[in-house]
Amino acid sequence: MNNHIKIIYCTQCRWLLRSAWMAQELLTTFDEEITELTLVPGKGGIFQIWINDELVWSRQETGQFPEIKELKQLVRDRVAPDKDLGHSDKKSDDSS
Amino acid sequence: MNNHIKIIYCTQCRWLLRSAWMAQELLTTFDEEITELTLVPGKGGIFQIWINDELVWSRQETGQFPEIKELKQLVRDRVAPDKDLGHSDKKSDDSS
Repeated sequence: MNNHIKIIYCTQCRWLLRSAWMAQELLTTFDEEITELTLVPGKGGIFQIWINDELVWSRQETGQFPEIKELKQLVRDRVAPDKDLGHSDKKSDDSS
Repeated sequence: MNNHIKIIYCTQCRWLLRSAWMAQELLTTFDEEITELTLVPGKGGIFQIWINDELVWSRQETGQFPEIKELKQLVRDRVAPDKDLGHSDKKSDDSS
């Protein structure tokens, strides 16, 4: 099973560092499940996360970045539905 | 012009952090030239850097990682040959 994550970020907004941080979080947690993770420089305030060609996060729609826990749940649900994310893996509306 | 960088790293060797660091260095320096940069988890001691489907670094061949300056020169020569890399951009055998 191939799983390809893509993070498109705005260079003008200087979102490389947070995108690379998210990339490392995902590659650490899903080291057996992610086949490749691509960082894509963009413009004009774009921040999107794609999992296997499905758009799972767009800052233009949500107005914000995902919490890292939320992001991991989005990935887990699609690439490793049985995976336990540990103590942070409460139900999605738990903000702890 | 599309330029696609790929870094394949061994997860068993815990080379994610240095790979992600190199990714950020390249995406910072070549923010206008790189179209996408892909991190690919691998096994068995692999560490390879590909630029547009050309293998430009293999730790299995060289026995070491590239200096970041060396890596930037490899990328520059292929994606932005006229780009000045600044004070670090001396001739390749300059170790400063």
